[in-house]
Amino acid sequence: MLLKVLEEYDFPIKKLFLFASEKSVGKVINYKDEEVIVNKLEENSFKDVDFAFFVSNSNVSKKWAFVALNSGAVVIDNSSYFRLNSDVSLIVPEVNFFDFNPNIPFVSNPNCSTIQSVLVLNALKKFGIKRVIYNTYQAVSGSGVKGIKALLDGESSFYPYNINKTCIPKIDDALDNDYTKEEMKMINETKKILHMNDLNISATCVRVPILYSHAVSVMVQFDKEFSIKEVIDELSKHPELVIVNDLENNLYPVSTLSNNNDKVYVGRIRRDLSNSNSLLFYCVADNLRRGAASNAVFIALKIIENYKRKGIA
Amino acid sequence: MLLKVLEEYDFPIKKLFLFASEKSVGKVINYKDEEVIVNKLEENSFKDVDFAFFVSNSNVSKKWAFVALNSGAVVIDNSSYFRLNSDVSLIVPEVNFFDFNPNIPFVSNPNCSTIQSVLVLNALKKFGIKRVIYNTYQAVSGSGVKGIKALLDGESSFYPYNINKTCIPKIDDALDNDYTKEEMKMINETKKILHMNDLNISATCVRVPILYSHAVSVMVQFDKEFSIKEVIDELSKHPELVIVNDLENNLYPVSTLSNNNDKVYVGRIRRDLSNSNSLLFYCVADNLRRGAASNAVFIALKIIENYKRKGIA
Repeated sequence: MLLKVLEEYDFPIKKLFLFASEKSVGKVINYKDEEVIVNKLEENSFKDVDFAFFVSNSNVSKKWAFVALNSGAVVIDNSSYFRLNSDVSLIVPEVNFFDFNPNIPFVSNPNCSTIQSVLVLNALKKFGIKRVIYNTYQAVSGSGVKGIKALLDGESSFYPYNINKTCIPKIDDALDNDYTKEEMKMINETKKILHMNDLNISATCVRVPILYSHAVSVMVQFDKEFSIKEVIDELSKHPELVIVNDLENNLYPVSTLSNNNDKVYVGRIRRDLSNSNSLLFYCVADNLRRGAASNAVFIALKIIENYKRKGIA
Repeated sequence: MLLKVLEEYDFPIKKLFLFASEKSVGKVINYKDEEVIVNKLEENSFKDVDFAFFVSNSNVSKKWAFVALNSGAVVIDNSSYFRLNSDVSLIVPEVNFFDFNPNIPFVSNPNCSTIQSVLVLNALKKFGIKRVIYNTYQAVSGSGVKGIKALLDGESSFYPYNINKTCIPKIDDALDNDYTKEEMKMINETKKILHMNDLNISATCVRVPILYSHAVSVMVQFDKEFSIKEVIDELSKHPELVIVNDLENNLYPVSTLSNNNDKVYVGRIRRDLSNSNSLLFYCVADNLRRGAASNAVFIALKIIENYKRKGIA
């Protein structure tokens, strides 16, 4: 998916290097008209690399991401391993690119459900965000190829229960506080990206039998008064958000709208009947693109633009 | 499903009458060892009827439920038509059977997602319920046979979008306040059943591609302080609730636990990190049984027990 997105956005690549574990060494991957051979990752692999995208798991990032950084590459790491590290920036480009630190050009790519949620919350920051409650509806592709297979197979034991027959209210491991890692990622990463360390925020993350795109139902309580019109006006200022908010005519966010593109669809926008200073909305985005690969590419593109503006590149 | 549950609970039936629209007249239905012929519903159909269960739609209930009542039958109506009518009681037997009025023995059977939610909330009433936010994960069987077919077919146009490919954040019709009828049912029925007209409560109802059992993710804010142990102690007092709350060992509510039985499964019990006086939990129950047929039968059984105790029956 990363290669697909790099190609789509015509990322300025002089030479593409692909590294993987020994299992995949020698494989040939097509990028544009070029055939690229997969190599084994080694200490000196990064010597000619300007941008290193890590799209493996935490163990690989833990072992190699700083090797890349120390070789002079800008690192964009899709794993969760370094996201809360205070030396590392955690960036959704439309929200907090100002967190990019050219002295330590190491950027973590946030959690998939978090990216789309903070894009909407950030657009509403002027109302004073006081409390946030997330409930997610997350696609099986968030678990990778094995998740997709589990849904298509019907009989897989990849998940603890048959995902064709039930939603599963546990994503990633359990933690001591009885939240899941996924829930704490949403909570902590939202705070870090929005620079709101004291934000009151909780999350319930649920896997649903959908192949692509995550949905998040959000309650956000504001300090200030707001009207629905003002909310929609604020959201409308952001080209990455698409408002689909005509319930009567069945216009609300669905996977079939968001799949294969990079927009965040926002709808079901209404005042929370349980609190007059609170808003409810529901957003959907492609978890593999907006929630992962495209956000990583957008970070890199913005870094290049930034370097160019400063005459570095 | 109603007949199945009546049979399972050995409901004391002397004579079973089955009424339907002309289309089904003459059909033979087996109940226990008996063959029962379906008749056309007419003005005098109820003259020998003690209990009339309405399991059709609002139009049928609107036209016929009071005919049955006026013929001397106890009416248990599964439609939503009379639920908020102040002359009609809306009952979850374990919660508010005291609302049954022998002078007007007309009981509405509440909304499927509401029944399971209030069973849990009622168990926690001593902490002082201040605010409730529901997010649902509702099975296609809630839409009846056509919903089931839509999921199994894969290409059905029964829902506005292909339910195999996306969750659908709209259940039942849109209302002027941008909530759906389903959401307002949950909100208003919860208030009525719990006798909390001023409860701060909102809901987001979402259809998910699951055949059976609805899940509800609940945020409940209390007036009083609580500990998780106290919460679990309170829940444990209620035999209709089954606590499955061991995240580490993958014990949480799932459809495959609740399908085909009448328990409400409660788990993911934890303090809401966005508010120290709030609790999060997640419950799952069979929408066709606990959320419909079984609740209706439990109401009727309790009415019989009540009449017996008073020496009426």
